[in-house]
Amino acid sequence: MPYELYYWPMIQGRGEYIRLALEEAGARYADVARRGNGMATMMRMMNAGKGTPPFAPPFLKDGKLVIGQTANILLYLGSRHGLAPKSEAGKLWVHQLQLTIADLVVEIHDTHHPLGPSLYYEDQKAPAKKRTEDFWKSRVPKYLDYFEELLKANGGTYVTGRRLTYVDLSLFQIIEGLRYAFPKRMKAFERKVPGLLELRDRVAARPNIKAYLASDRRIPFNEEGIFRRYKALDA
Amino acid sequence: MPYELYYWPMIQGRGEYIRLALEEAGARYADVARRGNGMATMMRMMNAGKGTPPFAPPFLKDGKLVIGQTANILLYLGSRHGLAPKSEAGKLWVHQLQLTIADLVVEIHDTHHPLGPSLYYEDQKAPAKKRTEDFWKSRVPKYLDYFEELLKANGGTYVTGRRLTYVDLSLFQIIEGLRYAFPKRMKAFERKVPGLLELRDRVAARPNIKAYLASDRRIPFNEEGIFRRYKALDA
Repeated sequence: MPYELYYWPMIQGRGEYIRLALEEAGARYADVARRGNGMATMMRMMNAGKGTPPFAPPFLKDGKLVIGQTANILLYLGSRHGLAPKSEAGKLWVHQLQLTIADLVVEIHDTHHPLGPSLYYEDQKAPAKKRTEDFWKSRVPKYLDYFEELLKANGGTYVTGRRLTYVDLSLFQIIEGLRYAFPKRMKAFERKVPGLLELRDRVAARPNIKAYLASDRRIPFNEEGIFRRYKALDA
Repeated sequence: MPYELYYWPMIQGRGEYIRLALEEAGARYADVARRGNGMATMMRMMNAGKGTPPFAPPFLKDGKLVIGQTANILLYLGSRHGLAPKSEAGKLWVHQLQLTIADLVVEIHDTHHPLGPSLYYEDQKAPAKKRTEDFWKSRVPKYLDYFEELLKANGGTYVTGRRLTYVDLSLFQIIEGLRYAFPKRMKAFERKVPGLLELRDRVAARPNIKAYLASDRRIPFNEEGIFRRYKALDA
């Protein structure tokens, strides 16, 4: 039975980290909310008063199991599709790195929504500019240098171990997203993380990922997702 | 060999969710950075160019294993001390709920730091007030109602299953922290979540937790941690 992925149908968002893992694995899955009345099904599953109703998308259904939270879904898929080490220590380490990426993703979202998710960007442009300044001054260097160092210490091909993990796929998405949202800032920054750029290219060239990126299953970046291109924030 | 917990010595912060689990379990542990030159040791471990250096505290050392990210540490401890179900589905569900609490913790921190972690609260008082308004209007009801419903659907004693898990301990800390940081707002809100208040009392009355809360191992809340009492934000 194919997996069922539930996520907002118009954006890459947090669902994209799951899509990349499913695609790399060559797993069969339905992107439910993008089909027919899938959105209604998704909303119904979140409001269920029993079982394990998720707080928010993305969530994954595998038979009877419904799993929420991006990093938790990757923990589950990683074991099943060789996208994480088999040892407990290795699993925990890869999961820890994914949770660090999840923290970075929140901070990326906060650059355009510092006053919270309920207001529009247009209502928080000045605070967004301040938050973005700090993000690029302090946070991007801290996070990306961390992963660059890990990559280097591990020999340069993958962030951990000798095989690709879901963390490598997620770092591809981070580099791609930062390039989309902040083309000028990223262009000035990216020579500091040559290893991550190579990793990005290495992931993009993998046959399953390459086919996915060229397909209409890959939703284009846009200004509803996590990575948004606002000129005022890229100055 | 006792566990070694590494976390900022002056605050409860994210380390508190780990401390509560270790205390409930009656596990032997050293709160390393609170002793002698423990801070220097902690900083050294984060800068190590090899092994599994954590991005940030808290992290836990168990023999040779070094584990970072609060929810990841709880995933590890939960299996070893009966603070999580044994089945894979049960483990994933409890971990998913802990990750949802982690998201809430970020939003709590953002109430006083909407422009980012590098600036002082004093430099972002006006945006902090706006973010806090939205937090109490939209986010607290959404998160706490979610956990209140889960608790009710599970019979009212614990959030999942028939035994206490680390999620119940973490929800104790959330209620306690919101009461500390926002006494007026929380007083007006809390009658909407009677189940969570009872859970808070049930956790506080457990012998190991009771002894811990009365000891000097429990650092008092203060204005350096996640939960901060600022009058301007509790109006």
